[in-house]
Amino acid sequence: MMKLFDFALAPSPKRVRMILVEKGLDIPIEQVDLSKKAQFEEPFKSINPRCTVPALQLDSGEVLCDSQSITRYLEEVYPEPPMLGSTPLEKALVVEWITRVEQEGFMATAEAFRNSVKGMKGSAITGPVSYEQIPELAERGRARVKDFFGVLNERLAEHAFLAGENFSAADVAAFVFVEFSGWIKLQPDEGLTHLLAWRDAVAARPSATA
Amino acid sequence: MMKLFDFALAPSPKRVRMILVEKGLDIPIEQVDLSKKAQFEEPFKSINPRCTVPALQLDSGEVLCDSQSITRYLEEVYPEPPMLGSTPLEKALVVEWITRVEQEGFMATAEAFRNSVKGMKGSAITGPVSYEQIPELAERGRARVKDFFGVLNERLAEHAFLAGENFSAADVAAFVFVEFSGWIKLQPDEGLTHLLAWRDAVAARPSATA
Repeated sequence: MMKLFDFALAPSPKRVRMILVEKGLDIPIEQVDLSKKAQFEEPFKSINPRCTVPALQLDSGEVLCDSQSITRYLEEVYPEPPMLGSTPLEKALVVEWITRVEQEGFMATAEAFRNSVKGMKGSAITGPVSYEQIPELAERGRARVKDFFGVLNERLAEHAFLAGENFSAADVAAFVFVEFSGWIKLQPDEGLTHLLAWRDAVAARPSATA
Repeated sequence: MMKLFDFALAPSPKRVRMILVEKGLDIPIEQVDLSKKAQFEEPFKSINPRCTVPALQLDSGEVLCDSQSITRYLEEVYPEPPMLGSTPLEKALVVEWITRVEQEGFMATAEAFRNSVKGMKGSAITGPVSYEQIPELAERGRARVKDFFGVLNERLAEHAFLAGENFSAADVAAFVFVEFSGWIKLQPDEGLTHLLAWRDAVAARPSATA
């Protein structure tokens, strides 16, 4: 039986929890308490030496340790409803927007958060190696998040969802990113009407509170 | 007819060129001279407002602007030989290792390069928005690249290729990352025997010089 290692308060595993709800899947979930640094301790450290959640342990014992790889696995085993697109173009656009949301949204927010908060000293990057905070990176992260709100708004002016006319894992990623940006006290401003309308539409889905 | 926008000296588009060779595809390729900042000028700026290569323009006019999304599109339209895995687990592991290579390898190298080289002043991040260099980030990038060489070596001690026993787009990404790390004068040291043996194996493929 598959098992998901999760931390209810963290943004990345929420992406997987939303996919599970969208696909109607109910699997065992175990909490790894990041607030107590349990990801760096046994037994979890051996399950996922990368020391991150989400991690999905398969029947075979194999462990997937990234929200993208976990989503791909779930899509292949439980294809309905599709969360990674249906046509070649849509499939490509889902990947493209997930990548952009990760690089331009999630990373920027994480940089702003991890390089400014006291509790993150020595933990400027996820994982087992300690990296010191760089205050300039926190500042840059905030600027990049604001830029990326604009990018998302422009895209959503043209399409109902990021990859086109269907809800996908790209929207899941972006929705969780927008929530995550609240951690650094940023939110899209009123003028970004397309982004805000899309956020309301996603927030109305049962998966939004997963 | 599809057209690839490329810059022969840049690492990211090489990933796509290698996929084209592996799949035996021959499509028109147009150079965008990054050394002359042609990516920020018309006509390319309108083709890809993200101002990055690779970019793949499809028959429909639609443009994909990320090596991952381009690879996914090519895989869907030209499935043989598979570059994104065959079984659900293999498909997930290809995605996982591409993501790790991008986040832990490519980004770290890019941070080290873009935050230290004179010609990159004001261009610490790809794209149309100018960000200043952060020297500490260059230093951190170098440390992360060395760490990641070790991660790859451990993985390749257990498997012939990153996603298991078959060559995939994850190996393409990692091979180009190892080449790219030469830009910051880092290379895996002698002790990383599994990584070096894998590199030799990939270097022997016709796609390696694409």
